[in-house]
Amino acid sequence: MATISSCPNLPAVNHRRPTILFQQPPTGRRWLISAAQNSASSAGSRRELQQRRGRSSHVASSAVSTDPPTSVVGDMERGSLAEKSGRSDGQLTARWREIHGSNNWEGLLDPIDTVLRGELIRYGEFAQACYDAFDYDRFSRYCGSCRYPAQTFFQGVGLDGVGYEVSRYLYATSSVKVPNFNNQKHKSADSKLWSETATFIGFVAVSTDEETARIGRRDIAVAWRGTVTRLEWVADLTATPKPVSEFGIPCPDPSVKVESGFAELYTGKDVECRWCRYSARQQVLAEVRKLVELYHGRGEEVSVTVTGHSLGSALAMLSAFDIAETGANASSDGKRAPVCVFSYSGPRVGNTKFKDRFEQELGVRALRILNVHDTVPKVPGVFYVFDEKTFPEWALRSIDSLGLGAVYVHLGVELALDHKVSTFLKDTLDPACYHNLEAHLHLLDGYQGRDQGFQLCGRDPALVNKAADFLLDEHMVPPVWRQDENKGMVRTEDGRWVLPPRQREVDDHPEDTDHHLDQLGLTAN
Amino acid sequence: MATISSCPNLPAVNHRRPTILFQQPPTGRRWLISAAQNSASSAGSRRELQQRRGRSSHVASSAVSTDPPTSVVGDMERGSLAEKSGRSDGQLTARWREIHGSNNWEGLLDPIDTVLRGELIRYGEFAQACYDAFDYDRFSRYCGSCRYPAQTFFQGVGLDGVGYEVSRYLYATSSVKVPNFNNQKHKSADSKLWSETATFIGFVAVSTDEETARIGRRDIAVAWRGTVTRLEWVADLTATPKPVSEFGIPCPDPSVKVESGFAELYTGKDVECRWCRYSARQQVLAEVRKLVELYHGRGEEVSVTVTGHSLGSALAMLSAFDIAETGANASSDGKRAPVCVFSYSGPRVGNTKFKDRFEQELGVRALRILNVHDTVPKVPGVFYVFDEKTFPEWALRSIDSLGLGAVYVHLGVELALDHKVSTFLKDTLDPACYHNLEAHLHLLDGYQGRDQGFQLCGRDPALVNKAADFLLDEHMVPPVWRQDENKGMVRTEDGRWVLPPRQREVDDHPEDTDHHLDQLGLTAN
Repeated sequence: MATISSCPNLPAVNHRRPTILFQQPPTGRRWLISAAQNSASSAGSRRELQQRRGRSSHVASSAVSTDPPTSVVGDMERGSLAEKSGRSDGQLTARWREIHGSNNWEGLLDPIDTVLRGELIRYGEFAQACYDAFDYDRFSRYCGSCRYPAQTFFQGVGLDGVGYEVSRYLYATSSVKVPNFNNQKHKSADSKLWSETATFIGFVAVSTDEETARIGRRDIAVAWRGTVTRLEWVADLTATPKPVSEFGIPCPDPSVKVESGFAELYTGKDVECRWCRYSARQQVLAEVRKLVELYHGRGEEVSVTVTGHSLGSALAMLSAFDIAETGANASSDGKRAPVCVFSYSGPRVGNTKFKDRFEQELGVRALRILNVHDTVPKVPGVFYVFDEKTFPEWALRSIDSLGLGAVYVHLGVELALDHKVSTFLKDTLDPACYHNLEAHLHLLDGYQGRDQGFQLCGRDPALVNKAADFLLDEHMVPPVWRQDENKGMVRTEDGRWVLPPRQREVDDHPEDTDHHLDQLGLTAN
Repeated sequence: MATISSCPNLPAVNHRRPTILFQQPPTGRRWLISAAQNSASSAGSRRELQQRRGRSSHVASSAVSTDPPTSVVGDMERGSLAEKSGRSDGQLTARWREIHGSNNWEGLLDPIDTVLRGELIRYGEFAQACYDAFDYDRFSRYCGSCRYPAQTFFQGVGLDGVGYEVSRYLYATSSVKVPNFNNQKHKSADSKLWSETATFIGFVAVSTDEETARIGRRDIAVAWRGTVTRLEWVADLTATPKPVSEFGIPCPDPSVKVESGFAELYTGKDVECRWCRYSARQQVLAEVRKLVELYHGRGEEVSVTVTGHSLGSALAMLSAFDIAETGANASSDGKRAPVCVFSYSGPRVGNTKFKDRFEQELGVRALRILNVHDTVPKVPGVFYVFDEKTFPEWALRSIDSLGLGAVYVHLGVELALDHKVSTFLKDTLDPACYHNLEAHLHLLDGYQGRDQGFQLCGRDPALVNKAADFLLDEHMVPPVWRQDENKGMVRTEDGRWVLPPRQREVDDHPEDTDHHLDQLGLTAN
């Protein structure tokens, strides 16, 4: 059986830095792996790897090959100089629209297109970054905020070289409907919380000039955070969809409906709070509009790529719909940036009318990555709720139109993965494992096509166990291994153990928010 | 309500370094607590503190006192020069025999004698050190061994300055009767385990010359490790005691019986294994004999103090009995070192005859510290087992002599604590908290006497939560906070995350073991 250390599919050199959880970039500690394991990591192999980049050949099977495998990781290499790293293979530059879903990914899924696979992992990492950056520490004054300043976000999460810069953080207020979305903040008499109700919910980022050249257009990436802890919110979902227009989204058709919990989280605000005086909706619309206007104004091609895992996927779908409906992806010269959603482990969001509007009238594309054993993509879809797995489309439309019950249907195109095909994962009954995002990225890394086997292309399998107990023991990776030393406790000079007081600036909203909201015809507050 | 940061009972300067879990001594990171909190930690207060040391006055109540409280911690200060630190107050030097139980601690428990309290915390820390030093890492080649070399053991566990040096590590072999005592070791094809069956089970240490001066005699401390994880072994206890003589302990009376699981662990060996070719029994007897002979030979007064928590307490009782019965505490000139047990959260060990022999004929002293809510001190004592809580002594003796059932009785003197009297601990239903050793040390620190309130004398309450979730939230100490960064995972040069291979020498047995066993009339193997 392949083990992490012996797997020949793994490239000798992986410039792709995986996500990390520390507040500080890693120290200089570097452990050399043993000589035997290092045999493939000579400089010679590295050059070969660069030369081979771009060829979409199948990676070698478990027989040890003298050729280092073509690494999709190569496509994901980051660096300030694309040419130097050999990433300018031109594929994405030429094919970005197709990869972005212009043809609904027809012909790209089975077998999977290697460029697409690389993109799916890349955007999945943005979604993962939202989790890794989140301050979960109940005793922290900044619980619920982002651990890193916007300027160094990607370095903080270990994605420096990713070629994006954060334009804005997104905040939401605690939602009654989704009560477990926020971490329980501990209100200590001693320390004032940064905010009673606000929570870091995602970010908007833009590709740098170099990355823009590599990917063929200026990409505005919007990433939404999923649930903090358990999946209790799944049980909290209401079975009654509501018209999107009730939430301020300017859809003319009142029969276009969405699950109201997601919509409330998306549109809720707390005018008393510095970070939530704008709803998440207002924040993302203002930012997307600003950036689209800016880059279209420079004559660039622009795309909007929205991503999220779990609850974050629902927010991604809703916000992508909203961006298109409100026209935040349109600039004053009439050009429209295409909007696409890369969704991971997402629940259903709206009814058949919502789907029609989303896909046809607005032309938003969505690719939904899921694990067939995960229950989240199957909800809402329980008692008294009708979904497309259980009922034929005509029946759903009837039920919907006649108001006979709650109808929820999925959007876009589905890419179904199965964790049981991976030789690295153990047979577990834990639903949290099925739902785990890092596990999905691992499954994508090995995915070749439907029933076409599993062969890793370069992503470090150890990442699966960052926050899960999913890898087989023989891979010698401890379960749930990402953690701070002593949970942040340190010893004072007099020998006592304490959580040290931390000062942190929490990034606020840009001053031009109101302006862009006005331009969109939305009142600020 | 008192909080850790504001509690005036806590001395400004605490030279007592709490136990730590890292393999390396702590780095230079020191966080200064805020100025407000530091107001008591001026050099002036420090001098006052030293001058006051030795006065056994009650510590100040929650009103802020201008006098820094008399700190028992002062009695626990460690340092290579006792005079410099002001520890040579003379109390222990003069009173050590009484503190060591020569008068069964009469008059010392209620109200509690401050010197005794300090000693109980000190030996409790030795028991705690066994846990802190244990390599729990399932994926480590050294799982089940001690993380530190014997020479630097106390530094490793954060007790440098404790004034003792490890003389020998103790190892036991996996026991069928106590199957959960050892950690599940992962047997990887890649790496050879240090031992399939051995487990680090405790140590023998000796007071340095300076410490000897402070405490009034050369102390040979024997500390036994308790259970690694859960208390499953409690259910595994057999209800049938067996004669100690069946295990090789040279007691002439076959009606003296002990619980056989403990005895098997104590006397088991695995001749194939380098570390278990001697049983734990053989190791401790050889070492104690050697040291007693050595120091009596120098004309010193010597004591043997045995300690352990939980299962370690049972081993402490059994080994103390054995040391006295076998005469390992006797030197060739006929002098006998007194033997005393400080037990924490200990179960019952033997029958009434065992108790008689232990206390009367052998004259071993035992002080059992327990939490009244903890179930472990109540076992064995379940169905078909008779114990002194349920039956009067005369009945127990009858049942015992007539062989009508299993009888287990506790030894020595009891010091019952109650976690509910501490204002720092939360109301929990978790039995693991009731049983937690650090919690007991916290309770000792605050103990004044029966129903005499709770006032901390200097031990850092944050230590309670090292491996438990017991402190109230308002003390801002995360639960179960002692942990290694990323569970030991590190990034290689090529960005991959791995557990680095570690080389470690595992301390072996001294070569003179056979000699001392011979001297005791015990065959080696």
